[in-house]
Amino acid sequence: MNKRYWSGRICGLVPYTPGEQPKDRQFIKLNTNENPYPPSPRVTGAVAAAAGADLRRYPDPEGAPLLAALSRACGLPQDHIFAGNGSDEVLSFAFQAFFDAGSTIVFPDITYSFYPVYANLFGIRCRRVPLNPDFTLPVEAFCGGNDGVVIANPNAPTGMAVGLDALRAILEANPHAVVIVDEAYVDFGAQSALPLVGAYPNLLVVQTMSKSRALAGLRVGFAFGQPELIAALRCVKDSINSYTLDRLAIAGAVAALEDGDYFDLRRRQVMDTRERAAERLRELGFTVLPSQANFLFASHPAVPARDLFAGLRAAGILVRYFAQPRIDSFLRITVGTDGEMDALCRALESLLGQRS
Amino acid sequence: MNKRYWSGRICGLVPYTPGEQPKDRQFIKLNTNENPYPPSPRVTGAVAAAAGADLRRYPDPEGAPLLAALSRACGLPQDHIFAGNGSDEVLSFAFQAFFDAGSTIVFPDITYSFYPVYANLFGIRCRRVPLNPDFTLPVEAFCGGNDGVVIANPNAPTGMAVGLDALRAILEANPHAVVIVDEAYVDFGAQSALPLVGAYPNLLVVQTMSKSRALAGLRVGFAFGQPELIAALRCVKDSINSYTLDRLAIAGAVAALEDGDYFDLRRRQVMDTRERAAERLRELGFTVLPSQANFLFASHPAVPARDLFAGLRAAGILVRYFAQPRIDSFLRITVGTDGEMDALCRALESLLGQRS
Repeated sequence: MNKRYWSGRICGLVPYTPGEQPKDRQFIKLNTNENPYPPSPRVTGAVAAAAGADLRRYPDPEGAPLLAALSRACGLPQDHIFAGNGSDEVLSFAFQAFFDAGSTIVFPDITYSFYPVYANLFGIRCRRVPLNPDFTLPVEAFCGGNDGVVIANPNAPTGMAVGLDALRAILEANPHAVVIVDEAYVDFGAQSALPLVGAYPNLLVVQTMSKSRALAGLRVGFAFGQPELIAALRCVKDSINSYTLDRLAIAGAVAALEDGDYFDLRRRQVMDTRERAAERLRELGFTVLPSQANFLFASHPAVPARDLFAGLRAAGILVRYFAQPRIDSFLRITVGTDGEMDALCRALESLLGQRS
Repeated sequence: MNKRYWSGRICGLVPYTPGEQPKDRQFIKLNTNENPYPPSPRVTGAVAAAAGADLRRYPDPEGAPLLAALSRACGLPQDHIFAGNGSDEVLSFAFQAFFDAGSTIVFPDITYSFYPVYANLFGIRCRRVPLNPDFTLPVEAFCGGNDGVVIANPNAPTGMAVGLDALRAILEANPHAVVIVDEAYVDFGAQSALPLVGAYPNLLVVQTMSKSRALAGLRVGFAFGQPELIAALRCVKDSINSYTLDRLAIAGAVAALEDGDYFDLRRRQVMDTRERAAERLRELGFTVLPSQANFLFASHPAVPARDLFAGLRAAGILVRYFAQPRIDSFLRITVGTDGEMDALCRALESLLGQRS
């Protein structure tokens, strides 16, 4: 590809690679951490009601009805909340809002692979702290001397979470740096840092509706923090796109948030299935990390993960494999329905049997 | 506002100010260039059909069904088309993709006020070329020596357009710089630069569904250019947010694009109303610039525009006033329905009568 007209800032970029979205063939899709259940049935009605003549009007620039619903749900005032087009957009705004070009931010060597992509685009330096050999977070290594900290909690693709004490230690040791806690998967069993927002002006908590709310297709994410941080995110948004949430996304997100019973039912189902599937994978000889997310990270001592990935794909099951140091013996497997996880385990059993 | 945690790149920013979106009171809203008619009725059904269980899945990262519909509509291959979250997002991606920090881009002194906002965020220098005294474009001043060119055609807030010969001259005089032609309002009577895309590798044409398609609330915009430029936009998107168009926006946009008859009916109505309203404003003593957009830019010799703006607001009619050199004697008036324009003219008549 000729790049005569590309700016210097993008010529050397390696963009993020999302998981495969197959178009041609029906797969059991356990590769992008989508929810196996549909969103709240209230979403459909709310979206249909919003899809009329009012679409000719711009949406509210801050997504006000959504901020109001979030405020009711979490108890924080609206000036503590930012809503955007998926948590990826919110994170990209946060990197621009809080991290200077040439400064150095820190995150684990094994984590969400979008963080270094944002950093590269905005000229921010990255210091990657190795996770401990058991993939736990070396908390003390994040304490002090950073221009910014990014922690996914639970972490991806390990699924492992830290408690609030660890986050408090990191927040207190970095009083002049913003600490982003990316809680994309928090609703599947980890502790949210939301109760810390009032105490720490340097804390930004980022969440999404893509996973636990089953709305990956609606593109809605949030950030929670003190007004100084939220105003910075709004400043970035209003310098890029005044309205990143369309009227339908706002309406659908509000309806999903208001259906708390459905939310609790579905995330409970996912967590129950996760524990049963982890147990069966262990019976098949896998090492399975303790997950508090809607996916499992599993490694088999006898068969290379790359081979299992390919074998599963041939059997019509998509999982995710990262050809990356330290984790290239692992598969990341999204928790599907019980039926989907049964099919996965049967396919793995067959693949392992062919090897023995 | 304390800005302890704000990055240097945003501390001095002045974000874009969108037109007022009143929440409390019913106004005749002629201030944000929205379409006075609802979108195609096909949109509602398409959105409702997309608002089911599939929302749990991520959308196609490039909005493939929308690229296919656009390709059918404009005749360009899909690798010549980019779709994003409104043309504002598309423009922000283009500024990052094609203009280096420290380089100098050129645009008219009177034009869409988001251009300098993008430039400031990304560290790009701006050279503002004064429009001629009659608000026409001094084409030769854009010919040569630029790192980038941005032309709104028709221009905002004047509504005045240039022909393809002028654009050809600018494209040929800037062979090493990308020329962005922002056609947000092109469907109301101006000539689109789309037929030039094949001949000029440095041309990026940007369009939106917010105006002529009556979908400001859906947030869908496009760019058209040769594959080298489109690939650069995708590189930026994939370094920020893999999926900026949600499933509902994709479905609604496709439905609107496929309803060509409705599109032609409504834009014809807007153009007819525009000409009638311009004539009545001239009868009231206004100077009205020749508009090829869905708004009129009008100045009265006897009464300050600021006073007319305030008087109209008190009468329940919102228009836009820019307190800015050279145009602070003008009102920008969105073309509404015939009834709304009648109400506007009556209110102006009354305000002017009180003065004489």
